Amino acid sequence: MEDVARPLDALNAARNKNVIVDLKNGSAYIGKLKAFDIHINMVLEEAEEHKNGEVKRKLGTVFIRGDTILTISPA
Amino acid sequence: MEDVARPLDALNAARNKNVIVDLKNGSAYIGKLKAFDIHINMVLEEAEEHKNGEVKRKLGTVFIRGDTILTISPA
Amino acid sequence: MEDVARPLDALNAARNKNVIVDLKNGSAYIGKLKAFDIHINMVLEEAEEHKNGEVKRKLGTVFIRGDTILTISPA
Amino acid sequence: MEDVARPLDALNAARNKNVIVDLKNGSAYIGKLKAFDIHINMVLEEAEEHKNGEVKRKLGTVFIRGDTILTISPA
Amino acid sequence: MEDVARPLDALNAARNKNVIVDLKNGSAYIGKLKAFDIHINMVLEEAEEHKNGEVKRKLGTVFIRGDTILTISPA
Amino acid sequence: MEDVARPLDALNAARNKNVIVDLKNGSAYIGKLKAFDIHINMVLEEAEEHKNGEVKRKLGTVFIRGDTILTISPA
Amino acid sequence: MEDVARPLDALNAARNKNVIVDLKNGSAYIGKLKAFDIHINMVLEEAEEHKNGEVKRKLGTVFIRGDTILTISPA
Repeated sequence: MEDVARPLDALNAARNKNVIVDLKNGSAYIGKLKAFDIHINMVLEEAEEHKNGEVKRKLGTVFIRGDTILTISPA
Repeated sequence: MEDVARPLDALNAARNKNVIVDLKNGSAYIGKLKAFDIHINMVLEEAEEHKNGEVKRKLGTVFIRGDTILTISPA
Repeated sequence: MEDVARPLDALNAARNKNVIVDLKNGSAYIGKLKAFDIHINMVLEEAEEHKNGEVKRKLGTVFIRGDTILTISPA
Repeated sequence: MEDVARPLDALNAARNKNVIVDLKNGSAYIGKLKAFDIHINMVLEEAEEHKNGEVKRKLGTVFIRGDTILTISPA
Repeated sequence: MEDVARPLDALNAARNKNVIVDLKNGSAYIGKLKAFDIHINMVLEEAEEHKNGEVKRKLGTVFIRGDTILTISPA
Repeated sequence: MEDVARPLDALNAARNKNVIVDLKNGSAYIGKLKAFDIHINMVLEEAEEHKNGEVKRKLGTVFIRGDTILTISPA
Repeated sequence: MEDVARPLDALNAARNKNVIVDLKNGSAYIGKLKAFDIHINMVLEEAEEHKNGEVKRKLGTVFIRGDTILTISPA
């Protein structure tokens, strides 16, 4: 994620890179960012669900509903 | 779910395939994805409700309201 | 609920049939689906409220606000 | 509440009749339905608030904000 | 609050009269209704905050955000 | 906050005056009201965060997101 | 954050400065404000997550979804 004028520019710069998506329920998804929209709905590939610092599930592709998301940062 | 430009493309690619729909309340629905809309309202067929890793109910067809959904991934 | 292109088609196919409406608060309403709209507001007839697997109330007609709904499935 | 094509038709048919309005917080309001709008904001007259099956307050007229409502049924 | 066709008519009829505004968090505000809008944002004058049946604070004028409101009734 | 026809008029009358902003999470911010918008997003200056009646933090300028606000009253 | 007519002016004045972003879940993010939009979605750089007054994680760049934000103030 590089120099950005609008928040979605940061997500655009992170396409095809690994990101950590923290959810409101305390779980995190780590994977390659493939797609997002203005609702911050996202698709990650080669994704893993983490809970309390441990891998809980390997998911392959995952669609994440935007309203459950807290933060997105580089993995 | 294949290469996608927008998040809903991933759902479109999953039509007629088995998906796991995780809800905000901790339950999961597994079934064949038949339909979805921009609110992420979904219809699954041959669906089962899972809770704590066990099948809780066999539902046949189920309509799931989009705002209850956390994630969608391939089954 | 038959073959559907959009989620609301499934609800349309269920008109005048018995459905189970599961709410976010853990209760369920079982009755004949008479009407619904795009907010998933619904009207059931000959409806019963169920809680923990038991009939709690017989309601006759009931209007259910859409934003309280988790899932809808055939009874 | 009679034969209805849309959910709000059921509310319209209930005007000037006694209804039970169940709220998300577990309380219920019973009174004569005088007005409602598309947000399901409602006005009841000769209304009583019930909690755990007992009358908690007599309110006369009460305006109920729609987003707090779970279900509406005939009293 | 008199005979009303729409819910906001009831609020309009209550202008400059004392009302009880019950909030989702269990507190209540009692004061003279001076203004409201379609979001049910309200301004009360000579207002008091009540909690568990006791006056907790005297507030003078208070602006109440509509989405925190449960019900409004005559004081 | 003086005589008002619409709720936002009350906020406008409070510009550059000290206000108490009560949040849904139980904390309160006290400071000089500098700006607000239709979402009730606000900016206070010389602001303090209060919790359980005690000053928790001195913040200088603070932006408060509107959807976290319960009430606004004169300090 | 300087003299402002609208709340977003305060955020604009804070661009490229360090801010504290307090979230509804009790955690705080401290970093340099790079971008924001009308939903108060934000991007911080050189960001740290704080919980109970201690640094929990160093994040580099972080995208924060606006609807999780409580307040924003200068660091």
